[in-house]
Amino acid sequence: MCREGLLVVVSGPSGAGKGTVLNLLKDSGDDSIRFSVSATTRAPRKGEVDGLNYFFKTKDEFKLMIENDELFEWVEYCDNFYGTPKKYIESTIKDGYDCLLEIEVEGAANVMKAYPQCVSVFILPPSFEELRRRIEKRGTEDVDVVNKRLDRAKKEIAYASNYDYVIVNDSVEDAVESLRSIINAEKLKFKRNIGILKQFE
Amino acid sequence: MCREGLLVVVSGPSGAGKGTVLNLLKDSGDDSIRFSVSATTRAPRKGEVDGLNYFFKTKDEFKLMIENDELFEWVEYCDNFYGTPKKYIESTIKDGYDCLLEIEVEGAANVMKAYPQCVSVFILPPSFEELRRRIEKRGTEDVDVVNKRLDRAKKEIAYASNYDYVIVNDSVEDAVESLRSIINAEKLKFKRNIGILKQFE
Repeated sequence: MCREGLLVVVSGPSGAGKGTVLNLLKDSGDDSIRFSVSATTRAPRKGEVDGLNYFFKTKDEFKLMIENDELFEWVEYCDNFYGTPKKYIESTIKDGYDCLLEIEVEGAANVMKAYPQCVSVFILPPSFEELRRRIEKRGTEDVDVVNKRLDRAKKEIAYASNYDYVIVNDSVEDAVESLRSIINAEKLKFKRNIGILKQFE
Repeated sequence: MCREGLLVVVSGPSGAGKGTVLNLLKDSGDDSIRFSVSATTRAPRKGEVDGLNYFFKTKDEFKLMIENDELFEWVEYCDNFYGTPKKYIESTIKDGYDCLLEIEVEGAANVMKAYPQCVSVFILPPSFEELRRRIEKRGTEDVDVVNKRLDRAKKEIAYASNYDYVIVNDSVEDAVESLRSIINAEKLKFKRNIGILKQFE
């Protein structure tokens, strides 16, 4: 069957529990899955390892990556650059591993355009009330701050219609299983296995 | 999530082990899955139950079903009619059950045309050699008969490109798991869950 890995783009608003889902998948020891590593110009924090947490770059190196079209997408944020290097993803896929890329909605739109054969998954919170509860639990009680975050989440959720799949994160375990089903099923798509009929001709 | 069930069309040449895969799925006690029941004018065999194995019809009743457009597809074979009633499938799906329809390639093509939102799966034998072995094992040693069946299988396999998914039946258990993944993933497709974003607007 399908020998090349998949690029799986995963987005979702803060409060959807996307990080928890991906961490559980990461810790499940599935050797066929790799996680995309971003490039950044910000300084490494304590314990962060180059090539594992980020590819740490100088601003000149990063600008050269932009010029050489080595990034699927990039943004400037708080005077630092962040981007998604093509090379890591492409070689991971070529080696037959599935590559998961957690990315915000606008970056995701750029990746989907650059790599249309990717699979895109949007993770939703179970309900608007639960989203509010989760955002409120994140340390601030300032109503204005909570409302701003909710507004932002709503705007992000509106992008869900651009994605192939949508997972409601009601239970983290179920959400991980859903993600696995999507990856398994996508690999069985006829369009990813065209060569398979050759031997029966 | 997606409340309506799926119509899952399953085909594959004889020797692909399609029946074994579907029987294992049937016996696994998954209550969310139903199997389509065909209509036929042939007499019930011992132990066959109307509405369970087949809907048994007189020729007049069958012809009336054709006239009233109550069949997705039908064929005449050995002076008897066989067909796929729409009503059973449609009510099963509406009640939220997934409906599996095992059907040969030409009937499947008609169903896909009549019900484009269906999911189609083609089951392949692991290799051409294994297909030959399985066909040879089916009771006849007549080389001509074996070759005719192989030819027919090849012709059927050429239709695989019309299907959404292709499963290589190397291990029956894996094939059942693949079928489950496909059903789970299809239910997570955004296009089947458009209403889900309403509460976040």
